[in-house]
Amino acid sequence: MVPNPIYLPELREMLAENNVEEMREFCTAIHPVRVAEFMEGLTPSEIWTILQSTDLENRVEIFSYLDEEMQADIMEAAPREEIAEFIAYLPADDRVDALQAVEEDQVVDELMSLLQAEDRRDIQRLTSFPEDSCGSEMTTDFVRLNENMTVKEALDEISRQAAVIETVYYLYVVDENDHLVGLVSAKQLLKNIGRPDTQIKTLMKRDLITVDAMEPREHAAREVARYDFLAIPVVDDEHHMLGIITHDDIIDVLEEETTEDAYRMAAISPMEEKDLEAPFVMIWKSRVVWLSLLFIAELGTFSVLAHFNDAIEAISVLVFFLPLVISTGGNSGSQAATLITRAMALGGVKVSDFFRVLKHELLMGLALGGALGLIGFVRAFCTTDYLLAGVSRVQLSLTICFTVAAICMTGTLVGALLPLLFKRLGIDPGVASSPFVATFVDVTGIVIFFSIAKILIL
Amino acid sequence: MVPNPIYLPELREMLAENNVEEMREFCTAIHPVRVAEFMEGLTPSEIWTILQSTDLENRVEIFSYLDEEMQADIMEAAPREEIAEFIAYLPADDRVDALQAVEEDQVVDELMSLLQAEDRRDIQRLTSFPEDSCGSEMTTDFVRLNENMTVKEALDEISRQAAVIETVYYLYVVDENDHLVGLVSAKQLLKNIGRPDTQIKTLMKRDLITVDAMEPREHAAREVARYDFLAIPVVDDEHHMLGIITHDDIIDVLEEETTEDAYRMAAISPMEEKDLEAPFVMIWKSRVVWLSLLFIAELGTFSVLAHFNDAIEAISVLVFFLPLVISTGGNSGSQAATLITRAMALGGVKVSDFFRVLKHELLMGLALGGALGLIGFVRAFCTTDYLLAGVSRVQLSLTICFTVAAICMTGTLVGALLPLLFKRLGIDPGVASSPFVATFVDVTGIVIFFSIAKILIL
Repeated sequence: MVPNPIYLPELREMLAENNVEEMREFCTAIHPVRVAEFMEGLTPSEIWTILQSTDLENRVEIFSYLDEEMQADIMEAAPREEIAEFIAYLPADDRVDALQAVEEDQVVDELMSLLQAEDRRDIQRLTSFPEDSCGSEMTTDFVRLNENMTVKEALDEISRQAAVIETVYYLYVVDENDHLVGLVSAKQLLKNIGRPDTQIKTLMKRDLITVDAMEPREHAAREVARYDFLAIPVVDDEHHMLGIITHDDIIDVLEEETTEDAYRMAAISPMEEKDLEAPFVMIWKSRVVWLSLLFIAELGTFSVLAHFNDAIEAISVLVFFLPLVISTGGNSGSQAATLITRAMALGGVKVSDFFRVLKHELLMGLALGGALGLIGFVRAFCTTDYLLAGVSRVQLSLTICFTVAAICMTGTLVGALLPLLFKRLGIDPGVASSPFVATFVDVTGIVIFFSIAKILIL
Repeated sequence: MVPNPIYLPELREMLAENNVEEMREFCTAIHPVRVAEFMEGLTPSEIWTILQSTDLENRVEIFSYLDEEMQADIMEAAPREEIAEFIAYLPADDRVDALQAVEEDQVVDELMSLLQAEDRRDIQRLTSFPEDSCGSEMTTDFVRLNENMTVKEALDEISRQAAVIETVYYLYVVDENDHLVGLVSAKQLLKNIGRPDTQIKTLMKRDLITVDAMEPREHAAREVARYDFLAIPVVDDEHHMLGIITHDDIIDVLEEETTEDAYRMAAISPMEEKDLEAPFVMIWKSRVVWLSLLFIAELGTFSVLAHFNDAIEAISVLVFFLPLVISTGGNSGSQAATLITRAMALGGVKVSDFFRVLKHELLMGLALGGALGLIGFVRAFCTTDYLLAGVSRVQLSLTICFTVAAICMTGTLVGALLPLLFKRLGIDPGVASSPFVATFVDVTGIVIFFSIAKILIL
């Protein structure tokens, strides 16, 4: 969030005068989002003091719009007892995130010991799921109903819980063993507000889309994105109701996955922090490892070229075309790899589509290579006379034409099939990044180039 | 959606026997998502017949889970009067999307003429906004309240409208001129269900985050993603309440923008359809245009190399290092371009950060280039004797080392700054794609390479 310094002097004055009335006014008159924005620039203790002036609900909402780091800093700076009491009212998933961002383990231990046993257990359970699993992403704050309740009873139950529960729009119906048996939306309840004795079991949906707590969180994100849900229930392998993942967390998951994919596609190791905000050395590491590996792989071009030393000496004009012909492989490979990786991320292409993709990209490579080969032919045909030592104009033009077409096809095929192959082998398909494909095709491209030249010219 | 053929034979049998009872059972017993999935593979008319067996609400929900193309096909295939009546109950934004997917203008005209004047006007208004604007993405289905209403009156109003309105969880308070004055959530109403006489004006939030109908839809998506809203209100420049964009459409916008960004980053023109599902020629076009442009730009490498003909002839070993040193520019440029473009998409970097980015990437380019230059030095130092005609081992190694470092820096700077520069000039920053940067740096890289070689060796 970008600090907005407009209000800072006023806020500092309020704090200096300990003017609780004005602080309350500030916290309630404008949108909680803006309150959070205007307070950036104050110290964690100052923010905590201002938050004390407003009621608990508003305090929780404003707090939720602060950066995670600021939330953690406040937890470290404010009196332990006050924070421990406050934590009980934070959404179950948000408080776990904030606690995990606290750097001092000592602080977390002290806070945990001050929490009620139930909250402590809840936090421990949520942190026990593997990273990036559905379980790690869910919240345990949701409304449980019983199928024998009436609409009126259900509405009363929501009314009671609305102060402490973030999402009250999907209500989950469980049996006596906490198995998930149905879902009813607040909308359906509101629609039946005039028929208060209607039983929940007559309204609820029984056939539900759920995710398993151990499944990767992207799976939940895909389901919610596809079906426009507000939240998706998370169950264990015995269909016990564990929690829900809400639409806002789904958006965060999708964005994080997208950024990771984009980074991998450009051969950057995934980073937690956003670029330019992360420490210099961390960004450097996430970039230099891949760059060095690619550089070392690209050393192969040296050896291949040295191998074709005789052809290079015989037909020196070929060298002038070298960057041109091999770049075609990188560009076409980058296109194909992006299309396939993106289609895989969106669920449109699966590993089992290997042969369908092979056929499609083989034809596409031909159609693309044909077009580029033609341009290459024309350019080679216009080569100045004095450069054409030891080779006829037609020979050279045909060599360039066939080489460009062949390299374009290779790039397209490699770019499209490597991600699928990697996925099949259990390697992240993003490793088949554009630079990786380009490097692979650079080496291959040189072999193709001089092999065709040897056949057509020498 | 992947067709699921399990139920198809049963469904065809029901249709052949016109067994309405079984069709109804099929439509109600399982989740509407699965009903839609199981029906894929039937003809549009068959699906419409099955949908007739269930009540209107369920019919609308199942229909909403069908592919947009199937929705359009059903609109073309089913009796006009039936569809026109059904359209009135579809969410305002969904029916516009489906109608726009109908290929026959004739059908759309016939359907429009059968609609109620109000619905027709609504559709015309929604289609009148520019493509990819907030107005084009919004729905006009939302609940309007008046600030003098009580909680009970508001709940009754929602109850009345819940059958025809998709999203009832945010309620918008407007004045007599339809200016947006406040927002109250269904959660707040439910919380106050025990105090039915509470007035809306005491509960509502007055300082709202809104978007303008003419703003780009990404702006709305960013706001919703940042603040975890369920929906965001769309207003005109006089703050009249026009519609809302809901969380599910926000996810779609984010995904479409992400795909577009990824495609641009790989030099593929944006396509509406998903890859492999789109017609071959359309995919070919979206790929060949950029590939050809890049190929033509890369022709520059030919001219530059021809220009350095004398240096190449004098020190032939340099040629073996050519692909190696220039690929460094492409790889480092691709990293930098991706980091900056992604940071810009997420709002972390703005055009005004130009000099901050310049300084950061200058240092980063040095740190990355230093590392690669070192590897290059070692490799060049190990060059076999017989290739070292006319150049000393140290001269060659220093040339490669400095060249790699310089090209890596150039790639990093160009990759990081071009997207910012393009944005400043009003060009989509995605045009500074990885292949574009690589091509640009290939040409520059050759100049750098032979210039350094001339200084250090000749």
